[in-house]
Amino acid sequence: MSSKPGQGKPEPKTPQPVSAAAAPPPELLELVEQLPLWRRPGYLIRRLHQLHYAIFFEECTGFDITPVQYGLLTILSTNPGCDQITIASHLGIDRTNVADVLARLSHAGLVKRERSQTDRRAMVACLTPEGEEVLRRMHPAMARAQERLLETLTPERRELFLETLVGLIDANNKYGRAALSSAHTGA
Amino acid sequence: MSSKPGQGKPEPKTPQPVSAAAAPPPELLELVEQLPLWRRPGYLIRRLHQLHYAIFFEECTGFDITPVQYGLLTILSTNPGCDQITIASHLGIDRTNVADVLARLSHAGLVKRERSQTDRRAMVACLTPEGEEVLRRMHPAMARAQERLLETLTPERRELFLETLVGLIDANNKYGRAALSSAHTGA
Repeated sequence: MSSKPGQGKPEPKTPQPVSAAAAPPPELLELVEQLPLWRRPGYLIRRLHQLHYAIFFEECTGFDITPVQYGLLTILSTNPGCDQITIASHLGIDRTNVADVLARLSHAGLVKRERSQTDRRAMVACLTPEGEEVLRRMHPAMARAQERLLETLTPERRELFLETLVGLIDANNKYGRAALSSAHTGA
Repeated sequence: MSSKPGQGKPEPKTPQPVSAAAAPPPELLELVEQLPLWRRPGYLIRRLHQLHYAIFFEECTGFDITPVQYGLLTILSTNPGCDQITIASHLGIDRTNVADVLARLSHAGLVKRERSQTDRRAMVACLTPEGEEVLRRMHPAMARAQERLLETLTPERRELFLETLVGLIDANNKYGRAALSSAHTGA
Protein backbone atom coordinates (compact mmCIF):
# COMPACT_ATOMS: atom_id res chain seq x y z
CA MET A 1 0.00 0.00 0.00
CA SER A 2 2.58 2.61 1.07
CA SER A 3 6.07 2.87 -0.42
CA LYS A 4 8.70 0.68 1.17
CA PRO A 5 10.79 2.24 3.93
CA GLY A 6 14.44 2.96 3.18
CA GLN A 7 13.83 4.11 -0.36
CA GLY A 8 14.22 7.76 0.44
CA LYS A 9 11.41 10.20 -0.11
CA PRO A 10 8.11 8.47 -0.87
CA GLU A 11 6.57 9.33 -4.22
CA PRO A 12 3.59 11.67 -3.90
CA LYS A 13 0.52 9.41 -3.96
CA THR A 14 -2.57 10.09 -6.02
CA PRO A 15 -5.47 9.06 -3.75
CA GLN A 16 -6.91 5.83 -5.12
CA PRO A 17 -10.60 6.21 -6.03
CA VAL A 18 -12.88 3.77 -4.18
CA SER A 19 -14.37 2.58 -7.46
CA ALA A 20 -10.91 1.42 -8.53
CA ALA A 21 -10.24 -0.19 -5.14
CA ALA A 22 -7.89 -3.13 -5.23
CA ALA A 23 -9.17 -6.53 -4.16
CA PRO A 24 -8.25 -7.45 -0.58
CA PRO A 25 -5.26 -9.75 -0.08
CA PRO A 26 -5.83 -13.30 -1.39
CA GLU A 27 -5.59 -14.89 2.07
CA LEU A 28 -8.47 -12.69 3.29
CA LEU A 29 -10.59 -13.67 0.28
CA GLU A 30 -9.78 -17.29 0.99
CA LEU A 31 -10.96 -16.86 4.58
CA VAL A 32 -14.23 -15.26 3.39
CA GLU A 33 -14.73 -18.03 0.85
CA GLN A 34 -14.58 -20.61 3.64
CA LEU A 35 -17.91 -19.32 4.90
CA PRO A 36 -19.64 -17.16 2.29
CA LEU A 37 -22.81 -15.26 3.20
CA TRP A 38 -25.20 -17.85 1.76
CA ARG A 39 -23.63 -20.55 3.99
CA ARG A 40 -24.14 -18.50 7.16
CA PRO A 41 -27.35 -19.62 8.89
CA GLY A 42 -27.58 -16.30 10.77
CA TYR A 43 -27.61 -14.35 7.51
CA LEU A 44 -30.14 -16.67 5.87
CA ILE A 45 -32.46 -16.64 8.88
CA ARG A 46 -32.40 -12.83 9.01
CA ARG A 47 -33.29 -12.70 5.31
CA LEU A 48 -36.17 -15.12 5.75
CA HIS A 49 -37.35 -13.24 8.85
CA GLN A 50 -37.53 -10.03 6.78
CA LEU A 51 -39.39 -11.79 4.00
CA HIS A 52 -41.95 -13.06 6.49
CA TYR A 53 -42.48 -9.50 7.72
CA ALA A 54 -42.98 -8.27 4.14
CA ILE A 55 -45.49 -11.04 3.38
CA PHE A 56 -47.24 -10.59 6.73
CA PHE A 57 -47.76 -6.86 6.14
CA GLU A 58 -48.90 -7.51 2.57
CA GLU A 59 -51.52 -10.01 3.75
CA CYS A 60 -52.56 -8.13 6.87
CA THR A 61 -52.69 -4.68 5.32
CA GLY A 62 -55.21 -2.37 6.97
CA PHE A 63 -55.01 -3.98 10.39
CA ASP A 64 -51.98 -2.00 11.57
CA ILE A 65 -50.83 -4.93 13.71
CA THR A 66 -47.27 -6.31 13.67
CA PRO A 67 -46.39 -10.02 13.87
CA VAL A 68 -45.17 -9.51 17.47
CA GLN A 69 -48.40 -7.71 18.42
CA TYR A 70 -50.47 -10.49 16.86
CA GLY A 71 -48.35 -13.01 18.76
CA LEU A 72 -49.12 -11.19 21.99
CA LEU A 73 -52.87 -11.16 21.26
CA THR A 74 -52.61 -14.90 20.57
CA ILE A 75 -50.88 -15.53 23.90
CA LEU A 76 -53.52 -13.54 25.81
CA SER A 77 -56.28 -15.54 24.15
CA THR A 78 -54.94 -18.80 25.57
CA ASN A 79 -53.61 -17.23 28.79
CA PRO A 80 -56.11 -14.57 29.91
CA GLY A 81 -54.79 -12.56 32.86
CA CYS A 82 -51.21 -13.47 31.93
CA ASP A 83 -48.35 -11.48 33.50
CA GLN A 84 -45.64 -9.63 31.55
CA ILE A 85 -42.83 -12.03 32.42
CA THR A 86 -44.81 -15.01 31.18
CA ILE A 87 -45.75 -13.09 28.02
CA ALA A 88 -42.05 -12.25 27.50
CA SER A 89 -41.05 -15.89 27.77
CA HIS A 90 -43.82 -17.06 25.42
CA LEU A 91 -43.12 -14.33 22.90
CA GLY A 92 -39.33 -14.44 23.09
CA ILE A 93 -38.86 -10.72 23.59
CA ASP A 94 -37.67 -8.98 26.74
CA ARG A 95 -39.87 -7.54 29.46
CA THR A 96 -39.36 -3.92 28.46
CA ASN A 97 -40.45 -4.72 24.93
CA VAL A 98 -43.51 -6.52 26.26
CA ALA A 99 -44.41 -3.40 28.23
CA ASP A 100 -44.09 -1.28 25.04
CA VAL A 101 -46.16 -3.68 22.94
CA LEU A 102 -48.81 -3.91 25.68
CA ALA A 103 -48.95 -0.11 25.95
CA ARG A 104 -49.53 0.19 22.19
CA LEU A 105 -52.21 -2.52 22.17
CA SER A 106 -53.87 -0.97 25.21
CA HIS A 107 -53.85 2.43 23.52
CA ALA A 108 -55.55 0.82 20.52
CA GLY A 109 -58.18 -0.61 22.88
CA LEU A 110 -57.24 -4.24 22.20
CA VAL A 111 -55.93 -5.22 25.65
CA LYS A 112 -56.60 -4.28 29.25
CA ARG A 113 -53.68 -4.03 31.71
CA GLU A 114 -53.56 -3.77 35.47
CA ARG A 115 -51.37 -4.51 38.49
CA SER A 116 -51.68 -8.10 39.62
CA GLN A 117 -53.85 -8.53 42.71
CA THR A 118 -51.45 -11.13 44.09
CA ASP A 119 -48.14 -9.45 43.18
CA ARG A 120 -48.31 -5.66 42.95
CA ARG A 121 -44.99 -5.51 41.06
CA ALA A 122 -46.44 -7.63 38.27
CA MET A 123 -48.61 -6.38 35.42
CA VAL A 124 -51.28 -8.67 34.05
CA ALA A 125 -53.23 -8.29 30.85
CA CYS A 126 -56.16 -9.71 28.96
CA LEU A 127 -57.91 -9.15 25.64
CA THR A 128 -60.77 -6.71 25.37
CA PRO A 129 -63.76 -7.72 23.22
CA GLU A 130 -62.18 -5.52 20.49
CA GLY A 131 -58.91 -7.44 20.89
CA GLU A 132 -60.76 -10.74 20.49
CA GLU A 133 -62.43 -9.36 17.40
CA VAL A 134 -59.13 -8.28 15.80
CA LEU A 135 -57.59 -11.65 16.65
CA ARG A 136 -60.51 -13.38 14.90
CA ARG A 137 -60.71 -11.09 11.87
CA MET A 138 -56.96 -11.08 11.21
CA HIS A 139 -56.54 -14.83 11.59
CA PRO A 140 -57.14 -15.81 7.94
CA ALA A 141 -54.66 -13.15 6.68
CA MET A 142 -52.04 -14.16 9.25
CA ALA A 143 -52.52 -17.84 8.36
CA ARG A 144 -52.14 -17.03 4.62
CA ALA A 145 -48.82 -15.30 5.34
CA GLN A 146 -47.56 -18.44 7.12
CA GLU A 147 -48.83 -20.58 4.28
CA ARG A 148 -47.24 -18.43 1.57
CA LEU A 149 -43.86 -18.39 3.26
CA LEU A 150 -43.55 -22.18 3.01
CA GLU A 151 -45.74 -22.84 -0.03
CA THR A 152 -42.85 -24.05 -2.20
CA LEU A 153 -42.05 -26.86 0.24
CA THR A 154 -43.61 -30.32 0.04
CA PRO A 155 -45.70 -31.22 3.13
CA GLU A 156 -42.86 -33.46 4.33
CA ARG A 157 -40.20 -30.77 3.92
CA ARG A 158 -42.51 -28.27 5.60
CA GLU A 159 -42.92 -30.52 8.64
CA LEU A 160 -39.20 -31.17 8.78
CA PHE A 161 -38.46 -27.46 8.52
CA LEU A 162 -40.87 -26.55 11.36
CA GLU A 163 -39.51 -29.40 13.46
CA THR A 164 -35.92 -28.24 12.82
CA LEU A 165 -36.81 -24.66 13.79
CA VAL A 166 -38.46 -25.77 17.05
CA GLY A 167 -35.49 -28.05 17.82
CA LEU A 168 -32.96 -25.27 17.17
CA ILE A 169 -34.91 -22.79 19.31
CA ASP A 170 -35.06 -25.31 22.15
CA ALA A 171 -31.37 -26.15 21.83
CA ASN A 172 -30.22 -22.51 21.73
CA ASN A 173 -32.74 -21.06 24.08
CA LYS A 174 -30.29 -20.61 26.93
CA TYR A 175 -28.71 -17.81 24.86
CA GLY A 176 -31.96 -15.98 24.22
CA ARG A 177 -33.29 -13.05 26.19
CA ALA A 178 -36.28 -15.00 27.35
CA ALA A 179 -36.93 -18.71 27.58
CA LEU A 180 -39.12 -20.36 24.96
CA SER A 181 -40.54 -22.11 28.03
CA SER A 182 -43.91 -23.58 27.32
CA ALA A 183 -44.54 -21.63 24.12
CA HIS A 184 -44.78 -24.87 22.17
CA THR A 185 -46.50 -26.87 24.85
CA GLY A 186 -48.96 -24.31 26.14
CA ALA A 187 -49.38 -20.96 24.45
CA MET B 1 -70.61 -9.06 27.24
CA SER B 2 -73.07 -6.24 27.82
CA SER B 3 -76.62 -6.80 29.02
CA LYS B 4 -79.07 -7.72 26.31
CA PRO B 5 -81.16 -4.88 24.92
CA GLY B 6 -84.79 -4.83 25.83
CA GLN B 7 -84.23 -6.01 29.39
CA GLY B 8 -84.69 -2.60 30.91
CA LYS B 9 -82.03 -0.97 33.04
CA PRO B 10 -78.75 -2.92 32.94
CA GLU B 11 -77.48 -4.15 36.31
CA PRO B 12 -74.61 -2.08 37.67
CA LYS B 13 -71.47 -4.05 36.72
CA THR B 14 -68.54 -4.59 39.05
CA PRO B 15 -65.48 -4.16 36.82
CA GLN B 16 -63.92 -7.58 36.29
CA PRO B 17 -60.27 -7.71 37.37
CA VAL B 18 -57.89 -8.64 34.52
CA SER B 19 -56.41 -11.45 36.61
CA ALA B 20 -59.85 -13.06 36.77
CA ALA B 21 -60.46 -12.52 33.06
CA ALA B 22 -62.72 -15.05 31.47
CA ALA B 23 -61.38 -17.25 28.70
CA PRO B 24 -62.30 -16.01 25.21
CA PRO B 25 -65.24 -17.69 23.48
CA PRO B 26 -64.58 -21.34 22.57
CA GLU B 27 -64.81 -20.69 18.82
CA LEU B 28 -61.98 -18.14 19.08
CA LEU B 29 -59.82 -20.60 21.02
CA GLU B 30 -60.57 -23.22 18.38
CA LEU B 31 -59.41 -20.81 15.67
CA VAL B 32 -56.17 -20.10 17.58
CA GLU B 33 -55.60 -23.82 18.12
CA GLN B 34 -55.72 -24.38 14.36
CA LEU B 35 -52.42 -22.54 14.08
CA PRO B 36 -50.73 -22.21 17.48
CA LEU B 37 -47.59 -20.05 17.82
CA TRP B 38 -45.13 -22.94 17.57
CA ARG B 39 -46.66 -23.96 14.20
CA ARG B 40 -46.22 -20.46 12.72
CA PRO B 41 -43.00 -20.34 10.70
CA GLY B 42 -42.84 -16.54 11.00
CA TYR B 43 -42.84 -16.76 14.80
CA LEU B 44 -40.24 -19.55 14.86
CA ILE B 45 -37.94 -17.78 12.41
CA ARG B 46 -38.08 -14.57 14.45
CA ARG B 47 -37.16 -16.52 17.58
CA LEU B 48 -34.23 -18.22 15.87
CA HIS B 49 -33.11 -14.91 14.37
CA GLN B 50 -32.98 -13.41 17.88
CA LEU B 51 -31.08 -16.40 19.22
CA HIS B 52 -28.51 -15.99 16.46
CA TYR B 53 -28.06 -12.36 17.44
CA ALA B 54 -27.56 -13.34 21.09
CA ILE B 55 -24.98 -16.01 20.17
CA PHE B 56 -23.25 -13.72 17.67
CA PHE B 57 -22.81 -10.96 20.26
CA GLU B 58 -21.64 -13.48 22.84
CA GLU B 59 -18.97 -14.82 20.49
CA CYS B 60 -18.00 -11.48 18.96
CA THR B 61 -17.91 -9.52 22.18
CA GLY B 62 -15.45 -6.60 22.15
CA PHE B 63 -15.65 -6.01 18.39
CA ASP B 64 -18.74 -3.78 18.53
CA ILE B 65 -19.83 -5.03 15.10
CA THR B 66 -23.37 -6.27 14.34
CA PRO B 67 -24.18 -9.23 12.08
CA VAL B 68 -25.43 -6.82 9.39
CA GLN B 69 -22.26 -4.73 9.63
CA TYR B 70 -20.11 -7.85 9.38
CA GLY B 71 -22.18 -8.92 6.36
CA LEU B 72 -21.49 -5.58 4.73
CA LEU B 73 -17.73 -5.88 5.37
CA THR B 74 -17.90 -9.36 3.83
CA ILE B 75 -19.63 -8.04 0.71
CA LEU B 76 -17.05 -5.28 0.26
CA SER B 77 -14.24 -7.81 0.52
CA THR B 78 -15.53 -9.74 -2.48
CA ASN B 79 -16.93 -6.64 -4.25
CA PRO B 80 -14.50 -3.77 -3.71
CA GLY B 81 -15.89 -0.48 -5.03
CA CYS B 82 -19.45 -1.84 -4.78
CA ASP B 83 -22.34 0.64 -4.96
CA GLN B 84 -25.07 1.03 -2.33
CA ILE B 85 -27.83 -0.54 -4.40
CA THR B 86 -25.79 -3.66 -5.03
CA ILE B 87 -24.87 -3.82 -1.35
CA ALA B 88 -28.58 -3.50 -0.45
CA SER B 89 -29.50 -6.37 -2.73
CA HIS B 90 -26.68 -8.61 -1.44
CA LEU B 91 -27.42 -7.80 2.18
CA GLY B 92 -31.20 -7.87 1.96
CA ILE B 93 -31.75 -4.50 3.63
CA ASP B 94 -33.01 -1.33 2.00
CA ARG B 95 -30.85 1.44 0.56
CA THR B 96 -31.44 3.86 3.45
CA ASN B 97 -30.31 1.23 5.91
CA VAL B 98 -27.23 0.56 3.81
CA ALA B 99 -26.40 4.28 3.93
CA ASP B 100 -26.73 4.22 7.75
CA VAL B 101 -24.60 1.11 8.15
CA LEU B 102 -21.96 2.51 5.77
CA ALA B 103 -21.89 5.80 7.68
CA ARG B 104 -21.31 3.96 10.95
CA LEU B 105 -18.57 1.77 9.48
CA SER B 106 -16.97 4.79 7.84
CA HIS B 107 -17.03 6.66 11.13
CA ALA B 108 -15.26 3.66 12.72
CA GLY B 109 -12.63 3.87 9.97
CA LEU B 110 -13.49 0.47 8.50
CA VAL B 111 -14.82 1.56 5.08
CA LYS B 112 -14.20 4.39 2.63
CA ARG B 113 -17.13 5.92 0.72
CA GLU B 114 -17.30 8.26 -2.24
CA ARG B 115 -19.52 9.28 -5.16
CA SER B 116 -19.15 6.96 -8.10
CA GLN B 117 -17.02 8.43 -10.91
CA THR B 118 -19.37 6.97 -13.51
CA ASP B 119 -22.70 7.78 -11.80
CA ARG B 120 -22.63 10.80 -9.49
CA ARG B 121 -25.90 9.76 -7.84
CA ALA B 122 -24.38 6.47 -6.71
CA MET B 123 -22.21 5.96 -3.65
CA VAL B 124 -19.48 3.34 -3.82
CA ALA B 125 -17.51 1.89 -0.94
CA CYS B 126 -14.53 -0.29 -0.17
CA LEU B 127 -12.76 -1.64 2.90
CA THR B 128 -9.95 0.28 4.51
CA PRO B 129 -6.92 -1.71 5.72
CA GLU B 130 -8.52 -1.44 9.21
CA GLY B 131 -11.75 -2.89 7.79
CA GLU B 132 -9.84 -5.81 6.27
CA GLU B 133 -8.18 -6.36 9.62
CA VAL B 134 -11.48 -6.44 11.53
CA LEU B 135 -12.98 -8.79 8.92
CA ARG B 136 -10.01 -11.13 9.41
CA ARG B 137 -9.82 -10.93 13.21
CA MET B 138 -13.57 -11.38 13.73
CA HIS B 139 -13.92 -14.28 11.31
CA PRO B 140 -13.28 -17.13 13.79
CA ALA B 141 -15.78 -15.71 16.30
CA MET B 142 -18.42 -15.13 13.60
CA ALA B 143 -17.85 -18.67 12.29
CA ARG B 144 -18.22 -20.12 15.80
CA ALA B 145 -21.58 -18.34 16.18
CA GLN B 146 -22.80 -19.96 12.93
CA GLU B 147 -21.47 -23.31 14.09
CA ARG B 148 -23.07 -23.08 17.52
CA LEU B 149 -26.48 -22.16 16.13
CA LEU B 150 -26.70 -25.45 14.20
CA GLU B 151 -24.48 -27.66 16.35
CA THR B 152 -27.31 -29.94 17.45
CA LEU B 153 -28.09 -30.91 13.84
CA THR B 154 -26.46 -33.84 12.08
CA PRO B 155 -24.37 -32.82 9.02
CA GLU B 156 -27.19 -34.05 6.75
CA ARG B 157 -29.89 -32.10 8.61
CA ARG B 158 -27.65 -29.05 8.64
CA GLU B 159 -27.20 -29.19 4.86
CA LEU B 160 -30.90 -29.71 4.35
CA PHE B 161 -31.72 -26.80 6.65
CA LEU B 162 -29.36 -24.41 4.83
CA GLU B 163 -30.67 -25.62 1.48
CA THR B 164 -34.26 -25.08 2.63
CA LEU B 165 -33.47 -21.56 3.86
CA VAL B 166 -31.80 -20.61 0.54
CA GLY B 167 -34.73 -22.10 -1.38
CA LEU B 168 -37.32 -20.23 0.71
CA ILE B 169 -35.43 -16.93 0.33
CA ASP B 170 -35.25 -17.42 -3.43
CA ALA B 171 -38.91 -18.36 -3.66
CA ASN B 172 -40.14 -15.45 -1.54
CA ASN B 173 -37.65 -12.87 -2.66
CA LYS B 174 -40.14 -10.96 -4.77
CA TYR B 175 -41.79 -9.86 -1.52
CA GLY B 176 -38.58 -8.61 0.07
CA ARG B 177 -37.33 -5.06 0.06
CA ALA B 178 -34.28 -6.01 -1.92
CA ALA B 179 -33.53 -8.92 -4.22
CA LEU B 180 -31.32 -11.72 -2.97
CA SER B 181 -29.86 -11.44 -6.48
CA SER B 182 -26.43 -12.95 -6.68
CA ALA B 183 -25.87 -13.10 -2.94
CA HIS B 184 -25.52 -16.86 -3.15
CA THR B 185 -23.78 -16.96 -6.51
CA GLY B 186 -21.43 -14.04 -6.18
CA ALA B 187 -21.07 -12.22 -2.89
